Amino acid sequence: MALIVQKFGGSSVADAAGLARVADRVAATKRAGNDVVVVVSAMGDSTDELLDLAAAITSEPPAREMDILLTAGERISMSLLAMAINARGVPARSYTGQQAGVLTDTAYGRAQIKQMAPERIVRSLAEGQVAIVAGFQGVNDDNDVTTLGRGGSDTTAVALAAALKADVCEIYTDVDGIFTADPRVVPTARRIPVITTEETLELAAHGAKILHLRAVEFARRYNVPLHVRSSFSDLEGTWVRNPTKEDPMEDPIIAGVAHDASQGKITVLGCPDRPGVAARIFHVCAAADANVDTIVQNVSSDSARTDISFTLPMDQAKSTLAALEAAEDDLGFTGLTYTESIGILSLVGAGMRTHTGISATLFGALFEAGVNIHMISTSEIRISVVVAAEDLPAALKAVHAAFDLDASTTEAVVYGGTGR
Amino acid sequence: MALIVQKFGGSSVADAAGLARVADRVAATKRAGNDVVVVVSAMGDSTDELLDLAAAITSEPPAREMDILLTAGERISMSLLAMAINARGVPARSYTGQQAGVLTDTAYGRAQIKQMAPERIVRSLAEGQVAIVAGFQGVNDDNDVTTLGRGGSDTTAVALAAALKADVCEIYTDVDGIFTADPRVVPTARRIPVITTEETLELAAHGAKILHLRAVEFARRYNVPLHVRSSFSDLEGTWVRNPTKEDPMEDPIIAGVAHDASQGKITVLGCPDRPGVAARIFHVCAAADANVDTIVQNVSSDSARTDISFTLPMDQAKSTLAALEAAEDDLGFTGLTYTESIGILSLVGAGMRTHTGISATLFGALFEAGVNIHMISTSEIRISVVVAAEDLPAALKAVHAAFDLDASTTEAVVYGGTGR
Repeated sequence: MALIVQKFGGSSVADAAGLARVADRVAATKRAGNDVVVVVSAMGDSTDELLDLAAAITSEPPAREMDILLTAGERISMSLLAMAINARGVPARSYTGQQAGVLTDTAYGRAQIKQMAPERIVRSLAEGQVAIVAGFQGVNDDNDVTTLGRGGSDTTAVALAAALKADVCEIYTDVDGIFTADPRVVPTARRIPVITTEETLELAAHGAKILHLRAVEFARRYNVPLHVRSSFSDLEGTWVRNPTKEDPMEDPIIAGVAHDASQGKITVLGCPDRPGVAARIFHVCAAADANVDTIVQNVSSDSARTDISFTLPMDQAKSTLAALEAAEDDLGFTGLTYTESIGILSLVGAGMRTHTGISATLFGALFEAGVNIHMISTSEIRISVVVAAEDLPAALKAVHAAFDLDASTTEAVVYGGTGR
Repeated sequence: MALIVQKFGGSSVADAAGLARVADRVAATKRAGNDVVVVVSAMGDSTDELLDLAAAITSEPPAREMDILLTAGERISMSLLAMAINARGVPARSYTGQQAGVLTDTAYGRAQIKQMAPERIVRSLAEGQVAIVAGFQGVNDDNDVTTLGRGGSDTTAVALAAALKADVCEIYTDVDGIFTADPRVVPTARRIPVITTEETLELAAHGAKILHLRAVEFARRYNVPLHVRSSFSDLEGTWVRNPTKEDPMEDPIIAGVAHDASQGKITVLGCPDRPGVAARIFHVCAAADANVDTIVQNVSSDSARTDISFTLPMDQAKSTLAALEAAEDDLGFTGLTYTESIGILSLVGAGMRTHTGISATLFGALFEAGVNIHMISTSEIRISVVVAAEDLPAALKAVHAAFDLDASTTEAVVYGGTGR
């Protein structure tokens, strides 16, 4: 008997059939002798429908009212799911974020969890009930409803699992787990059976879509084992956890390859090569709300000047370029260029710490594939390269193969072939 | 400057245009220097849509979950209305029943208000904001959401007005006020400018659809002046209030004529004419959940036996007849008849207490119109007659005219001619 937190996203509960499927799974988990807490998102497109309603009223809705509006979606899905589970003879109760004790700050739309006080959930479990909790929402010190922003339901689930000391937090999705690469781009990608939270963070931060950074950070900090798996099958998915002394998780050298095709590259040409210039450039970017990712300072032939390149989400490029132009006199650079068609490939693996030759193999594979490298950046367990957007698929396949990540034919059928 | 509670039903906020119209009115009331509290129902058919979602899941939803589900509707309408009012430059905040301090018992689906604790609403008003409160919902001692059942939003509005000592509780509707009869049946009906709560209770209890009994009872007990008026015009509507010593409200003898075409009549023939028989019959009816309305015990030619007739909602007739048949041996009656096609006309007026001759005028008018009377029952300020269903329209017109309730042509144009 275990305490299991199960999180289901909006696509899993999009309609009555989806709710029935989820209810069957929850009821089976409970009947198997487990205590079960379910975290649920709003049904399918219902959040978008609420956004449309608000857009028909005003283009500038107050954030507090927007959060009250949006939390109606989970209120609907959680009560319907409770009805469906009760209809299967398993007692279930649904709880709002407020009732479940999800206490947040007052940053409407992107609230941070300050404290978890799930006394009612504990009581519900003690009474033999499945406890269903609305994802994505909490309550602040004023007893006002808040939403947690993107990835909010995953975060609710992990935070509850941490507070309840759950044995596992199961994140249900429409794929079979976390893959060594995006199978839509790299058909030979295979499911990763076990991966560290650290590696998962690097993959998620560099384009892998499967889990939200914030939920993984929470899982790492509070040592919550995650099991990312398909809501359409009973197959094992991917276990995400911190290594322990007892079980050091003999890492493969490389966990996987992420890619990100949503960024553009700005190069600031001819910056005065003296201390503080880079700081001033990125101060201007930050003031323009740019999420700067990879940064490279190139060696310049003119020793008194240098070029600084960085990547950022494409939709932030225009405002950032305008901010830099406005500060041209102050920053003293000689020119600005912007490249939209770039792709970023990130090789991630905790084994990089102790293995040598990784970058040589990486660059060799890209050379063999005829891919030119524009920028390189590294962290302790990651190497990212910026390439031309049109080279990205070939680069991913070449690197995936070079590090022996390709699935055998059998594995590909079992793990790679369903429900994607 | 006054403190005004304004209640808007689902048809007033059915879409963005309706929300805009309501927001304009609220903003104007606030700009005129008043403190404004708004109580709002769910948008249009949204409650029915939520009921359909639940019906697709299970035929027996737990009442607690049903209440959580249904309260999503007001959460949506109240936050959208707050956005619309803010967009007009008037600060507004929306509050759930729980936030507004609507404390109820635990009777899900038909909760009773135990206490009002609207501290947040008081604070919101003090900060110059319009406070918008979700109608129909409250919270119980377990911090679980409850709904107040039929007429719940009216009840929320009146309870808030009482707790806040509001100067008036305005109930917005799609007609111009309370009329001397249903204008669809009696075209000469006119708007009643002022009516007592007591008369309103009798009219509402006998088929007038304009206000819910429960809200009027609340208004009477806590002395809250109601103003029932149209959300489509700025015309004065109908003021509903308790008479005071300073302002004794010189009553017209008759306030109005209500009608009810939703009832059927059961007659229990040949009951033993001895004490306790009627009690046992109505005990059987109560056990069958019948809402018995008018009761008449007829004089029988056989002095040892008597006939007892009563009316009840048509949809309760079948189960009630079955229950009476099952108890035939115990009750000792000789037969049962059921008549579906009856109509009930109720003449209501506080002036009946002090004026004589009312019933003579009533019966005279019905005789002149050729209407046969099946049953008669009276209260202190009401006379009800049961007639054949097909006679009801003629009976209403005749009685309306006989008591000088018909509008002059001018009045009919001003008060009776719009927005019905």
